[in-house]
Amino acid sequence: MDVEGLKSRLAEANQEHLLKYWNQLSDSEKSQLYKELNHLDFKEINGFFKTAMEDLASASEKLDDVLEPLPKEVCGRVVSTEEEVLLQYDVDGLTEIGESRVAVLLLAGGQGTRLGVPYPKGMYNVGLPSGKTLYQIQAERLLKLQRMGEAVSGSSCKIPWYIMTSEHTKQSTLDFFKKHNYFGLQEEDVVLFEQSLLPCIGFDGKIILEKPHKVALAPDGNGGLYRALHKSGVLKDMEGRGIKYVHVYCVDNILVKMADPIFIGFCMSKGANCGAKVVEKAFPTEAVGVVCKVEGKYQVVEYSEITLKTAEKRDSTGRLTFNAGNICNHFFTLDFLKFVSDPSQEKQLKHHVAKKKIPYVSEQDSKVTIKPDSPNGIKMEKFVFDVFHFATSFAVWEVIREDEFAPLKNADTADKDTPTTCRRSLLNLHHRYLLAAGAEFVDKDGNLLPHIPSQKGEEEAVFVESEISPLVSYAGEGLEKLVDGRKFTSPVYLNQDYKMEEPEIVEGEW
Amino acid sequence: MDVEGLKSRLAEANQEHLLKYWNQLSDSEKSQLYKELNHLDFKEINGFFKTAMEDLASASEKLDDVLEPLPKEVCGRVVSTEEEVLLQYDVDGLTEIGESRVAVLLLAGGQGTRLGVPYPKGMYNVGLPSGKTLYQIQAERLLKLQRMGEAVSGSSCKIPWYIMTSEHTKQSTLDFFKKHNYFGLQEEDVVLFEQSLLPCIGFDGKIILEKPHKVALAPDGNGGLYRALHKSGVLKDMEGRGIKYVHVYCVDNILVKMADPIFIGFCMSKGANCGAKVVEKAFPTEAVGVVCKVEGKYQVVEYSEITLKTAEKRDSTGRLTFNAGNICNHFFTLDFLKFVSDPSQEKQLKHHVAKKKIPYVSEQDSKVTIKPDSPNGIKMEKFVFDVFHFATSFAVWEVIREDEFAPLKNADTADKDTPTTCRRSLLNLHHRYLLAAGAEFVDKDGNLLPHIPSQKGEEEAVFVESEISPLVSYAGEGLEKLVDGRKFTSPVYLNQDYKMEEPEIVEGEW
Repeated sequence: MDVEGLKSRLAEANQEHLLKYWNQLSDSEKSQLYKELNHLDFKEINGFFKTAMEDLASASEKLDDVLEPLPKEVCGRVVSTEEEVLLQYDVDGLTEIGESRVAVLLLAGGQGTRLGVPYPKGMYNVGLPSGKTLYQIQAERLLKLQRMGEAVSGSSCKIPWYIMTSEHTKQSTLDFFKKHNYFGLQEEDVVLFEQSLLPCIGFDGKIILEKPHKVALAPDGNGGLYRALHKSGVLKDMEGRGIKYVHVYCVDNILVKMADPIFIGFCMSKGANCGAKVVEKAFPTEAVGVVCKVEGKYQVVEYSEITLKTAEKRDSTGRLTFNAGNICNHFFTLDFLKFVSDPSQEKQLKHHVAKKKIPYVSEQDSKVTIKPDSPNGIKMEKFVFDVFHFATSFAVWEVIREDEFAPLKNADTADKDTPTTCRRSLLNLHHRYLLAAGAEFVDKDGNLLPHIPSQKGEEEAVFVESEISPLVSYAGEGLEKLVDGRKFTSPVYLNQDYKMEEPEIVEGEW
Repeated sequence: MDVEGLKSRLAEANQEHLLKYWNQLSDSEKSQLYKELNHLDFKEINGFFKTAMEDLASASEKLDDVLEPLPKEVCGRVVSTEEEVLLQYDVDGLTEIGESRVAVLLLAGGQGTRLGVPYPKGMYNVGLPSGKTLYQIQAERLLKLQRMGEAVSGSSCKIPWYIMTSEHTKQSTLDFFKKHNYFGLQEEDVVLFEQSLLPCIGFDGKIILEKPHKVALAPDGNGGLYRALHKSGVLKDMEGRGIKYVHVYCVDNILVKMADPIFIGFCMSKGANCGAKVVEKAFPTEAVGVVCKVEGKYQVVEYSEITLKTAEKRDSTGRLTFNAGNICNHFFTLDFLKFVSDPSQEKQLKHHVAKKKIPYVSEQDSKVTIKPDSPNGIKMEKFVFDVFHFATSFAVWEVIREDEFAPLKNADTADKDTPTTCRRSLLNLHHRYLLAAGAEFVDKDGNLLPHIPSQKGEEEAVFVESEISPLVSYAGEGLEKLVDGRKFTSPVYLNQDYKMEEPEIVEGEW
């Protein structure tokens, strides 16, 4: 340990207080703190802080006057696209997948504070009949999609899965995949890499100590992706595998269509190097960021950055003018990712600043960590969509929310984005897949149930629970031959062993 | 009491079991049961039952093949109507109100079983800063609207308020209004009348006894309105007052714009004798009835009556084809109401049948009422919208859900339509009214808050609570002069005493 060197670097950056407790630390604590501090570039961090505080000061300036709607030619909507066009996108996407030119990249470095579990969100089981975790569902979607790609290309294919973790999630994620044999995927096709952490900083510019030997650190946002891509060698790995297109998504959307061939096909048809899958914003004050243009560049504008008047603007058909709700579901060409991950571009991405309540060492008793009642400092994060700014050719694909977006954000005590809402969203979607494939559902007495179940919670209400293994169907395809004309009782779990055979009424397996 | 006469009528109708416990009853119980039974027309009830069971048997037949979308010419949407056209509707509606030609009619005979309170829903307080009940909010909206009508007509006007109660709600509703001096309305302008009750009937056709001296009775549905109008003399009362237009609505929508001048003006512009205010159905499987046409007649089709395929149909612009979500908000001319309430039309309205768990007297011990685990009989109800069938000129006005529809259906343990969701809907709407009028909101430190509050439940989230007395503003109008340029801290309650004056920051009053 070059403690003197560290001291002088700290002094230079006006952060000497970080060694305030040095003489009280045990050897292992000393080594831990030294390691943490030695990783940090204080000059850079001070620069980030300065810019961040300037941004905070101007944060109440609204973007309304510079906001432009998306040009029609970059947009597509699944609900107003002809069946044969959708089919063409699908085939185009599957062709790329079949040729092993598509990778998926998962953003999974968050701490899931609001969900309130001490492990990564991907390991969460929302209580489906199968008991599958988010990671297992996603792994099986990839397995199925590989088979579908192979059916198109006629040869074996791979969809490598890059998972960006952070210090908080890396080890447990790795252990989880190992324990479950990568859910049938090849170990070498599941590539974990790590995003950086940034210190939390007090309003006075001083980095906050959480414990005498521990800096208050937080992941640098999902936009830490680009820095991590550059540092980790993932881009080289992609290049080596011949990847051309990358689908980036967040771990918490239980309905996520990973490497969605239709989305890929659509973006390709637009010749886009960057694309976003969106859902229609439901109402003007929905707290969702929208994809739009600002001074000629594509951007996600957060709900807090616009006034009510702009949020309520509508076009002549009555749709909200700024309605492309961001669901963190992005398409990039590898060339684009390489370009934006280069430090000369990456440095231009500004940090977003949030005032936070950051736990800190008590002045009175250094053994105590105090959780403040009001914000005492800032967290700095980059956002994955900030690279839209660099897009030379862009594409926006609007999908149906109920079919593709149900994020797990909160514990069940909240009123939305909970394990319960996620579970219901998936069960509802799979119920619709089965109905569309010709299945019927009956109650215990054999009476046909309505397709649209009551949501009243009344005595006569019947909530139909249907789950289909991704190994059986990626997005509802191929079910007719299994279920057309069959009668089911809820709950239903269709796994890969399901056969179309007697008895006439299939009892739920759960 | 002509017990023998009753006996023979019961025998004729095969319902003699209703006097099974007669000899065990006390005198007062005898008189109670006699009174209840003497009211009932058993021949008619047996006829209802027969038709109801036939309907149940054919209930799984879907309406898909006979469903037609609404003709464009009967539809209007607030989001795609020019400002000056909206203004014209408003003035036209207010003119009718100002001339005392508009009445409102409240459907409030339901028992509110799901909300779980032993008193009428209108008496519920959802926890607004003002503590107002639904009835008070509605009464004050009428008071304000009368003033607005008077401003247009230049002379005093009245909007009589007809309230349909049932045996379950009549007395407590009356007591409540008396106790609160009709919230400032004239007693003679609040007219209570009562809908009928119908017995619940076992699957074997036998009327169910809840207690030895008490028949299991339930209100005959909100469509009991027409029978009640005919019997009660309300139509004559309306005629005597010179009423031309009636706005019918349900008690549970906290945002209801009673006698909404824009809706009235729109329906008048279409020359409609019958109209419905609707909200856009949010997604295909939303459990909401939709206004459409069936074999050339207007009708509300319930979600359980169509298949998924039909529910998912979209037009070329991507909107759902059957998207006019019914919110029990109707416009009728008095002439139309008189026509459909005449028994020759009213009798054509079929009962809707629901299988229910109906509590019944125990065979073993007549002192015990048993609540069954599965349905043991049926309830028969008519629906208020079934008269659309008779409309010769129809109008459908689509409004913004967030602005006009938030029903109170369930207790707070449910995940929607609860006191909490109602309260938030109203507070959010009033927050938007204030923002639109030029108010700003600041936190305790004086920092401007974003117009669209975070919904994350995160530490930095700020939920702005604003309530405006209906006596100050009916639907957001007239607030500029009170709040433009002012800064408020949450919670805000603007009552009729609020003045635009110092201090610069108005502290919440709550």
